[in-house]
Amino acid sequence: MTYSASVVGGSGFTGGELLRLLDGHPEFELEQATSRSKANKTIGHQHPNLRHSDLRFSSPEDLESVDVLFAATPHGVSMEQIDAFQDAAGTVVDLSADFRLNTEEQYDEWYDGHTRPDLLEASEYALPELNRDDLAGADLIASGGCNATATILGLLPLFEADVLTGDERIVVDVKVGSSEGGAGGGEASSHPERSGVVRPYAPTGHRHEAEIQQFLGVDVSFTVHAVDMVRGASATCHVFPDGPVSKGDLWGAYRGSYEDEPFVELVAGGGGVYRYPEPKAVAGTNRAEVGFELDPANKRLVVFSAIDNMMKGSAGQAVHAANVALGIEETAGLEFQGLHPVGAP
Amino acid sequence: MTYSASVVGGSGFTGGELLRLLDGHPEFELEQATSRSKANKTIGHQHPNLRHSDLRFSSPEDLESVDVLFAATPHGVSMEQIDAFQDAAGTVVDLSADFRLNTEEQYDEWYDGHTRPDLLEASEYALPELNRDDLAGADLIASGGCNATATILGLLPLFEADVLTGDERIVVDVKVGSSEGGAGGGEASSHPERSGVVRPYAPTGHRHEAEIQQFLGVDVSFTVHAVDMVRGASATCHVFPDGPVSKGDLWGAYRGSYEDEPFVELVAGGGGVYRYPEPKAVAGTNRAEVGFELDPANKRLVVFSAIDNMMKGSAGQAVHAANVALGIEETAGLEFQGLHPVGAP
Amino acid sequence: MTYSASVVGGSGFTGGELLRLLDGHPEFELEQATSRSKANKTIGHQHPNLRHSDLRFSSPEDLESVDVLFAATPHGVSMEQIDAFQDAAGTVVDLSADFRLNTEEQYDEWYDGHTRPDLLEASEYALPELNRDDLAGADLIASGGCNATATILGLLPLFEADVLTGDERIVVDVKVGSSEGGAGGGEASSHPERSGVVRPYAPTGHRHEAEIQQFLGVDVSFTVHAVDMVRGASATCHVFPDGPVSKGDLWGAYRGSYEDEPFVELVAGGGGVYRYPEPKAVAGTNRAEVGFELDPANKRLVVFSAIDNMMKGSAGQAVHAANVALGIEETAGLEFQGLHPVGAP
Amino acid sequence: MTYSASVVGGSGFTGGELLRLLDGHPEFELEQATSRSKANKTIGHQHPNLRHSDLRFSSPEDLESVDVLFAATPHGVSMEQIDAFQDAAGTVVDLSADFRLNTEEQYDEWYDGHTRPDLLEASEYALPELNRDDLAGADLIASGGCNATATILGLLPLFEADVLTGDERIVVDVKVGSSEGGAGGGEASSHPERSGVVRPYAPTGHRHEAEIQQFLGVDVSFTVHAVDMVRGASATCHVFPDGPVSKGDLWGAYRGSYEDEPFVELVAGGGGVYRYPEPKAVAGTNRAEVGFELDPANKRLVVFSAIDNMMKGSAGQAVHAANVALGIEETAGLEFQGLHPVGAP
Repeated sequence: MTYSASVVGGSGFTGGELLRLLDGHPEFELEQATSRSKANKTIGHQHPNLRHSDLRFSSPEDLESVDVLFAATPHGVSMEQIDAFQDAAGTVVDLSADFRLNTEEQYDEWYDGHTRPDLLEASEYALPELNRDDLAGADLIASGGCNATATILGLLPLFEADVLTGDERIVVDVKVGSSEGGAGGGEASSHPERSGVVRPYAPTGHRHEAEIQQFLGVDVSFTVHAVDMVRGASATCHVFPDGPVSKGDLWGAYRGSYEDEPFVELVAGGGGVYRYPEPKAVAGTNRAEVGFELDPANKRLVVFSAIDNMMKGSAGQAVHAANVALGIEETAGLEFQGLHPVGAP
Repeated sequence: MTYSASVVGGSGFTGGELLRLLDGHPEFELEQATSRSKANKTIGHQHPNLRHSDLRFSSPEDLESVDVLFAATPHGVSMEQIDAFQDAAGTVVDLSADFRLNTEEQYDEWYDGHTRPDLLEASEYALPELNRDDLAGADLIASGGCNATATILGLLPLFEADVLTGDERIVVDVKVGSSEGGAGGGEASSHPERSGVVRPYAPTGHRHEAEIQQFLGVDVSFTVHAVDMVRGASATCHVFPDGPVSKGDLWGAYRGSYEDEPFVELVAGGGGVYRYPEPKAVAGTNRAEVGFELDPANKRLVVFSAIDNMMKGSAGQAVHAANVALGIEETAGLEFQGLHPVGAP
Repeated sequence: MTYSASVVGGSGFTGGELLRLLDGHPEFELEQATSRSKANKTIGHQHPNLRHSDLRFSSPEDLESVDVLFAATPHGVSMEQIDAFQDAAGTVVDLSADFRLNTEEQYDEWYDGHTRPDLLEASEYALPELNRDDLAGADLIASGGCNATATILGLLPLFEADVLTGDERIVVDVKVGSSEGGAGGGEASSHPERSGVVRPYAPTGHRHEAEIQQFLGVDVSFTVHAVDMVRGASATCHVFPDGPVSKGDLWGAYRGSYEDEPFVELVAGGGGVYRYPEPKAVAGTNRAEVGFELDPANKRLVVFSAIDNMMKGSAGQAVHAANVALGIEETAGLEFQGLHPVGAP
Repeated sequence: MTYSASVVGGSGFTGGELLRLLDGHPEFELEQATSRSKANKTIGHQHPNLRHSDLRFSSPEDLESVDVLFAATPHGVSMEQIDAFQDAAGTVVDLSADFRLNTEEQYDEWYDGHTRPDLLEASEYALPELNRDDLAGADLIASGGCNATATILGLLPLFEADVLTGDERIVVDVKVGSSEGGAGGGEASSHPERSGVVRPYAPTGHRHEAEIQQFLGVDVSFTVHAVDMVRGASATCHVFPDGPVSKGDLWGAYRGSYEDEPFVELVAGGGGVYRYPEPKAVAGTNRAEVGFELDPANKRLVVFSAIDNMMKGSAGQAVHAANVALGIEETAGLEFQGLHPVGAP
C-alpha cells in the first residue's frame, strides 16, 4: 500500500530533507510541496539534489488532501494552521517546537503563549526509541529538537536501567553545524563569519532543555557551540553518578535499550580513526551513534552521542515516526548508510 | 537474479565506496572484501558508515569465486594479479589505471612498462555514456580516471555533434578534493597543510590527459588544482571553437548526447544559488552535472562539469558499468540523490 | 613625521582591514572610522581583532580633516562623495571600482554611467609594481580589483619583457574566497550553501577584465570560481605564446620585473608541500606569490599568482600606495609575514 | 640591546611559529634554526610565510652560542639535551612537557620516567599571568600546554578572587584545531578523515590536567574534542560554585586579575556576531579571550576561554616569557592583532 504525502514549508533545509526522503520512499508518494517564496519553481531549483524531479512548489494556501502531511514551518506556524493541516491529512507530523511539550505551563516557560494548548497532551513526540508504542496510529506527531534528540539518546539508557535517578549533576556540551540556523541565516551565518568557528551560541537557557527535562525528568546544564560543519549535532554528556558504575553495567544498559533499535549504533571504541561517535559518520543518515568512557579519577561518566541534525534530529526522525504511525517497515526510505570519507558534511 | 561480488583492496577510499554500494545494491550480494593491512577487522572498523555490517576483511591471497570482482588496488597491482582475478570471477572491474588505455605505446608514454599488454585492447572503458554497447557482456572493465571522466563528460557532446573537430584549443582547469589522494596521504594531505588550499598539484602533464586524448581525439591543456573539499571533481573547459556556435546548437548537442542518460543532469542556469554544475550537488551520487556559458567577446565556450570523484569518477562508474555488463537495471544500487545542504562533502 | 588618516566605510571587510593596518602603522595615526549602520559602536564590536581599540564609528556625514582618507564604500559611492572626501583630505585612496578605469567609455562598457568622468584620467591606479612613479605625490588613488591584481601581477613581466605581445590567447581561471562577497552576503554566501563549493560565479564577463585590458593591453578569457576559503585569490593563467620560450627567459622576465619588489615573491618550485603560489601562504599579508610551469606538449605556459584578496587585492594595496604617495617606507605597516600552518584563512 | 636567539626543532609547527616571531622581533636576532630532517634547506622551504628569509636549517648537533635558545622538540628530547642547551644559551625556553611539572611524582603520574628530575623545581612555567615575578631572570622556562593554558586563564581569576576554593565540581570541555597534532600527523590527521569532525580524541585522562591541578589546585573533569580548524583551542569550563555568585562579583574577579594584562581580553557579550570568546578572533595572535555567562537555573557558571594553541598556547607564550625573563617590553614581537574575517585559521 502506498500513502500520499505532502510537505508544507518545502524550501527550507528540513523541508528539503523531507522532500528527499519522500522522493525516495518506497511507501510514500510525494504529492505536494508548498513554499510561499518559491511557489511555481521546481523543488530542484531550491534543492539541487532534486533536480531530477518535476514537482513544483505550490502556495501553502492550497493544501491537497493526503494521507500524511509533514510541516516544516517556523515555530508558531503549525499551531495556527493545525486545523487546516488536520483537515488535509489524517496524519500530521510537525517539525517545529509547537507540539513537543506536554503542557501549556512548560510551553510558556520556554516559548511564548501557545494558541492551541488543547493539542499539547494529544500530540506524540516523534522519537521511537522513547515512545514507539504511543506513535502507532498517532495522528499528530511532534518531531523533536535536534540537540534534545542527541542528548536524550545519549542519556536514556542510564535512566531506563536506573544507573541515574535524576538527581545527578549532568553537563551537556553540544556542538552543532550551520544548517541548524536554517536557510535564512543572517550575518553570523555568513560564510566568512561562520567558517572555522567554535562559537558559544547558546551558553545557557537553550529551549531544548525543556524536552530533555520532560522525557528524562532531569535538569541538565546545557551549552551549545557552533562549529565548522554544515550537518551534525554532537552531544557530550558529562555525568556524575552517585555511586560506582562499571563498564559492564553500562554496556548492559546501552545494549538493553538499543540492541534492537534499527537506528542506534553503539560505538565501542577499539582502534582505528573512528573510535567514538562522530557526526561525520552519520551525515545524511537517520542513525545515531552512542558511546561512552569512564573517568574514574573524577567519578565521571562521559557519554558521546552524534546525529545528523537534519535527519535523526529532524526530517529523518519525522519519517521514522510516520513509518511507525502507519505501520510501515520502520527503516523504509531511511536506508542510506552514509559516506566515508566525507568532509564537513 | 542475484550476483555475488567481491572487492579486492577494500580498505581504501574507493574500496570503501564499492563496499557501500554493493552493501545496498538490490542485485549484488557482497561476499568478500580483502585488505592486507586490515585483515580480520570488520569493514566498519575502517569505514564507519558500514558499522552495521558483520563482514570482515580477508587476506587478498584467498579470493573467493564470485560473479563480479571489483579491484580497488593501487596502479600496477591489477596487471600483476589479473589472472587470479579472472580465475575468481567472470567479470572483473578494475578501478586502477592499468587497463584504461588501448595500446602499450600509450601506456608507456604516460606510465611505466605494462606487464600484460595483451589485455589492453580487450578491456572496456567503464563509462556507459561513451561506450555502453561495448560494455554489455564485457568481462574486463577499466573504470576511468576521475578528472578524465569529468572532462570527457563535459566535452563529449561537442564532438558527437561535430561542434568541435579536435583541432581546437581546449584548456581544462580542474579542481579536486582531498579524497583523490587516497587514504594514505602524506604531509601535503595532512589537515593543517591541506585545509583551505588552492594548490596547483598537477600543473602540467597529468596522466588523465591520455584518456581524454584516447576518447575524444584531442590534446587538452590540463591543469589540476587541489581545493578544500573531500569529495568532488569540477572540470572547467575553456573551449575556442573555430566558427560561431549558438546557444541553441549547444543545447541541441548536449540534449542529443544526454537526454536519456540516467546519470547526467544538464544544468541550465536560471536563478537561485545553484546555477551551474557544482560538486556539492552531486556528492555521494553517481550523477554528473554538465552546463556551459558562451563568452562571445572572447569567442569562447566555457563548459562546466562536476562529479563526485569517488562515485561517477570511480566506484559509482564501476558499479554502473557492471550493471550494464550484466544486463541489470542501470541505476540499481546507485539511487542516492545526494544531500542539500551539504558542506565540504 | 606622522600622517593622520581616516576610513570611510569602516564596518565592511576591507574597511576592517584598513582599520587593522592603520592601527598598526608606524606613520599613520587613525583618527576616524565611519559607518552609518554601526555609528557609536566601537570598531572592535564589528572587528573582534580590534577589541583593544577605543575608537568608535562616527557617522559618514561628519568627516574630519585628515592627511589621508581611505574610502571603502560600495561601488558608486565615492564618485558621489569625492568632493567631500577631497575637502577632508589631501590624499584620497578609493577602494571601489569608481576610479580604476581611465576613460568614461571604458567605464560605461563595464559599469553604469559615471558621474565624475573628469576625475578618471587624473586618478592613479594603486599598484606600485605597475606604476610606482605615478603614485608618488598622487592625490587620488584607485585601489585595484582583487582578481585583476592577481592576474596583472602574474602576467605583467611577460609583457614588460616582450614575451607576449597582446595577441596571444590567454585563459585566466580564478579561484576566490568568500570575503570577496563582502560582509552583507545573501543566501549564496550563507555557510551551509557556501561551504565546500567549487562554484562558477562569474563564468564570463567579469568586470575586472576591464582593468586587465587597460594595463596589459590584452583581452583575457576570464572565469572566476568561488572555492572554500575566506581570504584569497588565486589566478591560473594559461598562456599560449607565439614562439618557443625557455625557462631561463621566463625567469629572466620575472626577476627583471620583481627582484626589487618588496611584496612579490617568486616561487620557484622545488620540493616540499608548497611548490607553487598559494593563497594560504600569503593570507593576512600584502605579498603576492608568482610562479609558472611550462607545458611543452601543449605549447603552453601556466602562470600561478596568489594574493590575499583583502590585502594585496584591496586594503594592503591601498596602504602600500599611500606609503608610496607620501614618500613613506613602502613596507611600513605591512610587515606581517603570514602564518604557517593556517587553515582556510 | 639585542639578544641572539636560536630555535631547536624548527621544522615543526611550533618551531615555525617561533621562527616567525623571532624573525619579526625588534629585540631578538634569529641566529640559528635546527632541524635534523630539513638540514640545509631554507626555513621558507618548510614554512612558506618565511620564504623571504635566507636562513637555512642546521643540524641539531651544532648548536651556536646564543642568549636565548627555544626548544620545540618532542616530549622527552629536552630532558636529554638540556645540558647542551644550557651550555649554548643562558636562557632556555622549552616548549615540550618536560619541565612543566614541579615534582618527579607528578611527572611519573602522567608521563614516563624523567631523566632530569633535579631541574623540575628549578624551571619556571611560562605563563606571565600566573607567575610573572618568577619569570624575571629565569634561566629555564617551560612553556605550558595549550589546553591547560586556555583552562588556567579561564579559571585563574575565580581562584585568585576566592570565588572558588578547589572543592567545586568543574567540567572542562575543550575544542582544538588540527595543528595540535603537529606536523607529522597520521591517518586520523589526514584531510579526508579530519575535515569536518567533532571527534572526542581525549575523552578522559588528558595529561594537561596535571598542569591545571598544579597551578589551580583543583581536579577538573577534562575532555578534548577535535573540531575543524587548524589553529585554536577553546575551553568551556562548566563551574558549580558552592554559593551564589553575582555577575558583578565575577566581573570584579576577572578585571582584578586581567585589567593590566596586555594579552588577555575580557569579552563582555553585548550584541554583534562575536559576543563570546572565539579562537577565530585571536588566530595568529598571543591574545587570550575570556568571558562567562551565569546559568542560575542550574547554579552554574560557564566560562569561555579562547586562544591560538600555537601562540598563547605555545610559541607566543614562550616569547612572552622570554621577554619577561630578559626584561624586554612584554609585547615586543607579539603585536599582531589578528584578522577579520578569517576562516578556519
